[in-house]
Amino acid sequence: MKVGIVGASGYSGEELVRLLAKHPDVELSMITSRQLAGQSASSVFPALRNMHEELVMSDSDVASLVASDIDLFFLALPHGVSVEYAKPLLEAGKQIIDLSADFRLDSADRYFEFYGEHPAPELLNQSAYIIPELADKSAFGFNLIASPGCYPTSLLVPLVPLARAGLINAQGIIANSMSGVSGAGKKLADTYLFAERNESVKAYGIPKHRHLSEVEEQLEKAFGAEAVIQFIPHLVPMNRGIQSSIIVKPKAGASLEQAYEAWEAAYADKPFVSILAKGQTPDTAEVVGSNRVDISIVEDMRTGNWIINSCIDNLLKGASGQAVQIMNVKYGFEETASLEP
Amino acid sequence: MKVGIVGASGYSGEELVRLLAKHPDVELSMITSRQLAGQSASSVFPALRNMHEELVMSDSDVASLVASDIDLFFLALPHGVSVEYAKPLLEAGKQIIDLSADFRLDSADRYFEFYGEHPAPELLNQSAYIIPELADKSAFGFNLIASPGCYPTSLLVPLVPLARAGLINAQGIIANSMSGVSGAGKKLADTYLFAERNESVKAYGIPKHRHLSEVEEQLEKAFGAEAVIQFIPHLVPMNRGIQSSIIVKPKAGASLEQAYEAWEAAYADKPFVSILAKGQTPDTAEVVGSNRVDISIVEDMRTGNWIINSCIDNLLKGASGQAVQIMNVKYGFEETASLEP
Amino acid sequence: MKVGIVGASGYSGEELVRLLAKHPDVELSMITSRQLAGQSASSVFPALRNMHEELVMSDSDVASLVASDIDLFFLALPHGVSVEYAKPLLEAGKQIIDLSADFRLDSADRYFEFYGEHPAPELLNQSAYIIPELADKSAFGFNLIASPGCYPTSLLVPLVPLARAGLINAQGIIANSMSGVSGAGKKLADTYLFAERNESVKAYGIPKHRHLSEVEEQLEKAFGAEAVIQFIPHLVPMNRGIQSSIIVKPKAGASLEQAYEAWEAAYADKPFVSILAKGQTPDTAEVVGSNRVDISIVEDMRTGNWIINSCIDNLLKGASGQAVQIMNVKYGFEETASLEP
Amino acid sequence: MKVGIVGASGYSGEELVRLLAKHPDVELSMITSRQLAGQSASSVFPALRNMHEELVMSDSDVASLVASDIDLFFLALPHGVSVEYAKPLLEAGKQIIDLSADFRLDSADRYFEFYGEHPAPELLNQSAYIIPELADKSAFGFNLIASPGCYPTSLLVPLVPLARAGLINAQGIIANSMSGVSGAGKKLADTYLFAERNESVKAYGIPKHRHLSEVEEQLEKAFGAEAVIQFIPHLVPMNRGIQSSIIVKPKAGASLEQAYEAWEAAYADKPFVSILAKGQTPDTAEVVGSNRVDISIVEDMRTGNWIINSCIDNLLKGASGQAVQIMNVKYGFEETASLEP
Repeated sequence: MKVGIVGASGYSGEELVRLLAKHPDVELSMITSRQLAGQSASSVFPALRNMHEELVMSDSDVASLVASDIDLFFLALPHGVSVEYAKPLLEAGKQIIDLSADFRLDSADRYFEFYGEHPAPELLNQSAYIIPELADKSAFGFNLIASPGCYPTSLLVPLVPLARAGLINAQGIIANSMSGVSGAGKKLADTYLFAERNESVKAYGIPKHRHLSEVEEQLEKAFGAEAVIQFIPHLVPMNRGIQSSIIVKPKAGASLEQAYEAWEAAYADKPFVSILAKGQTPDTAEVVGSNRVDISIVEDMRTGNWIINSCIDNLLKGASGQAVQIMNVKYGFEETASLEP
Repeated sequence: MKVGIVGASGYSGEELVRLLAKHPDVELSMITSRQLAGQSASSVFPALRNMHEELVMSDSDVASLVASDIDLFFLALPHGVSVEYAKPLLEAGKQIIDLSADFRLDSADRYFEFYGEHPAPELLNQSAYIIPELADKSAFGFNLIASPGCYPTSLLVPLVPLARAGLINAQGIIANSMSGVSGAGKKLADTYLFAERNESVKAYGIPKHRHLSEVEEQLEKAFGAEAVIQFIPHLVPMNRGIQSSIIVKPKAGASLEQAYEAWEAAYADKPFVSILAKGQTPDTAEVVGSNRVDISIVEDMRTGNWIINSCIDNLLKGASGQAVQIMNVKYGFEETASLEP
Repeated sequence: MKVGIVGASGYSGEELVRLLAKHPDVELSMITSRQLAGQSASSVFPALRNMHEELVMSDSDVASLVASDIDLFFLALPHGVSVEYAKPLLEAGKQIIDLSADFRLDSADRYFEFYGEHPAPELLNQSAYIIPELADKSAFGFNLIASPGCYPTSLLVPLVPLARAGLINAQGIIANSMSGVSGAGKKLADTYLFAERNESVKAYGIPKHRHLSEVEEQLEKAFGAEAVIQFIPHLVPMNRGIQSSIIVKPKAGASLEQAYEAWEAAYADKPFVSILAKGQTPDTAEVVGSNRVDISIVEDMRTGNWIINSCIDNLLKGASGQAVQIMNVKYGFEETASLEP
Repeated sequence: MKVGIVGASGYSGEELVRLLAKHPDVELSMITSRQLAGQSASSVFPALRNMHEELVMSDSDVASLVASDIDLFFLALPHGVSVEYAKPLLEAGKQIIDLSADFRLDSADRYFEFYGEHPAPELLNQSAYIIPELADKSAFGFNLIASPGCYPTSLLVPLVPLARAGLINAQGIIANSMSGVSGAGKKLADTYLFAERNESVKAYGIPKHRHLSEVEEQLEKAFGAEAVIQFIPHLVPMNRGIQSSIIVKPKAGASLEQAYEAWEAAYADKPFVSILAKGQTPDTAEVVGSNRVDISIVEDMRTGNWIINSCIDNLLKGASGQAVQIMNVKYGFEETASLEP
């Protein structure tokens, strides 16, 4: 099977290159980037040094993508740009796994509230939002699949099984997340310079970060009820990793044992979710480089709240690793192919 | 005036040395440390290279401290050890500013709940807990002053004026704080090795961190009501700095303008508190090296909560800088002497 | 084939666990550690979460290693301890790849000069020192193989082909290397605490770092002449990676083109050496996580010197990755099995 | 005395603001920046929060600088821009301390070789290059003073006394320096993004970094002979600090004791140079925040070389601190005013 990556100049594009270049079941036969077109891929990506020396970066023009013999495209494009590629590629019968926010929501109204007018709202219901551990098998049949955002993955993996099991309240959920700086992408702005972000931690994007839209839409499906989340993201001085600290109110009578049971039922045989033993809390350092989500839960007797912590690598389970995992499941490859558990 | 530092081998001890050595109004005439006794102070502390070359590290035995001509001692000792020094020094008529948790609480019961039996509970009411911007003038008259903890300072500075003004609820306060690794002290444990903490963020000390005891005691005084706080501290890979993200529920009818007014009333003429303009959030990088607290507030229309952010340097306003500020105010020195605003 | 890791509590031990657990051709059936004996391996190593849940950490007693059905042992033990295991294991017919310095030298005199009396000097000539790209095929036949040190690998890979080709002088070689802090191992000492090493760079181990012994022995073989190297190592605040800046004096008439030719001849078909294009210099960030060595060379017209730069991941090509590569070649597995180029 | 800072948007500009705002002997009455003109200085610089609230950022037009009542201007401008300001300001009788490279050389030919045509070569001999510990008293009388570069300061402070004393050879000096990322300035380029420079070390600017020009010119004066230096700078992942490892060849018969004597003679009473005890090597962490240079020397018996290490804070002794120190000496203020030793 031939795969292509559209828009490989950013951090998740680069991770896709690394993962797909060594994947045993697919051939990485196209990598596009406007800025880098014409350069050899092995000169652009250190991970390709000594590998794929024949591969040359292509321009990102839609017509040649449509005309190519690529079966599956990964779109690693900015929000609002993906849609311009998705439409013609779908019409040409290509399969798409999109890493942008363009197809993560069902509701055009919600999209409007957080991002503005959607340029192709009819596609919102022709696409599936897939966290592989939580999605229906049927979702993998869609030709257009939205790979979730990094913060949402860190929040939904621990929360959805508890919501589905009726153990926690939909209201009053509070999430504080800390992200490594690669989460901001490769943006040229003063604020992302080394000497600005090093030895610094700060909150940003409050009170209404865009990722809330997909978190709330997914939680409402899981709860069967409206969910308004208080979410505070922070930048911390490390390259990769997200740590989320989530405070939830258990329903009357719900016990921590039931919470563990709900997690076990959802994740017991899943290679990329690890439920930590009581007393342990996850550490981003333990998941960086892997596609794993590590989760823990503890009860605070003084407040009655449950405190949930989760960690992921924002560029792997939070972006490119999850996209490859989606492909693995969709095409029946080994789920862990090219990924570290 | 002659001052001494007892227990100078840790990070706050070292900061005290730096601040007091260059202080225009006091003479740093004694530095004690069991491990370092007998060495020249200028060989131990890089900040003293080329300075105070006559000063030799003393042993920490109580008798010689009592017999000395030092007027004021700063105790930079572990919790439970300070009390062993405070008692005889007080009896000998010395003044004390203590950086440990030994005298931060009024209530022996609360102390017991968080730390165990207090060895000298009678001292709890002979000592004052002082954040200089918030304490009564009378508090500075005590011979034994407890300098507050780092997390508590970052929480109490923004919260107390709002609590006193009756603008926020005592219940439902949630604080997530991120601390640089020096906050853990100079402890020899695997978990504090560079390669463990670098490129890592994790929550710890949940659900019942010891600093909750002083935060709650102080907030209860400010609210005139019980306050149970949900507090989640995190270690982030930087040397210094604390960022706190605090979620509070405003009282019915309370407005953000009133919150700013309460802050202005409390801090307008205070050199070490900076109320950020609307739309700005503080950054630890902007306070490291200074004794300042930067605070901001924003309303979340979706949840009805207020989000407060504050930043301090944990070793300065969170420890040694605040202790020096207490001395400056107590003795009528310039409040900013030896400190950067 | 069954493999075991002896002494897995340090950083290179942990990397060996990760690499061997996912290796397609071997079964990781024993991991020993005195401190961790009895614990499940998947609770000790995050990389084994959800994997190898049956594996329990063993004690490191020699008798049970000898009695086991393990074919090949990786020794990740401190210098001086490896030899205690190597002797009985060899006598029991086991194969050994040793990551310590115990068998890296041929000369007992040189060993004595840098490390003291060797406890089993007869083994020095029953062992092979193998950088796979540079060693004779015959070396892989030894039952006891010494995997090279991290600094030596970063120096020998670029230097040996130039020395063998007679292009550079054996005298006057000067190497300045910068290492991430994991290079110091998981040692509990003040100096390796996060807040000591972060935001810090310093030289150490001058003028006579122990790694000089193996560098000089190998270079003397390559030059056929005595080589005394000036070597200055430095610790820099990152987890992994070594960058070496090497200054050499070309022989009269030697050209940079000949240097590239010598490198090409040695490394053209090697998956783990990448010769950078003119004008590029290597970056540790580009090799961390891979088993690659990136090398570059430039001529300084003003001084007549050549400046060589090389980068490796100190825990992979500088330790555990190289050990696995040695195994791969020795047993005829794919050279890149379990390793990223 | 009134001072102004021209071009305060970069890192050394910001340090100048911090140092001059709290200086006891001068009034910081103008700060210019094209981008920031019109904003209040206290909103731009966190160090001015709660201070100098009256100060408004000015535009950088030459005419208004000339017309102002400022006595002394600090120029924190890019190379090639300073000269445009220096000329008219000098003609208007203003004093200038320039932090750029525009006036660091005497020789227009050397300037041409490293930077291109000098736009006002006649000024090269109307300006003085001043490292305060090494310059003649007469140099401070110049109206135009060039504050040295960061790497040159770290190299010249240890080398010049040894050169003047005739203890080392002018030829064969090799310097490897590691700089924190602020050394590159606040440049918007991919390579200076946090996620590019963090967890990375690399050499750059080889073989002919521009700072060589001033190092060699100053060393030639000290040696009275041509000096060609091999210099390799590296970027390491920290905000501030430079560590230089320098290899020199002692003259026949020269002893380490003589080296220490030469250093003592030059620096015994200097507050900002610290000669470390034998066996110690400097650490950037120990000088960051101070204006100090820490230096050490060791002899390598195997190679016959001396190894010198030095550390500075690149933004203080390497830039703005040194500029303020120059002012302090020039105007007879306390040499350490506003600076930490």
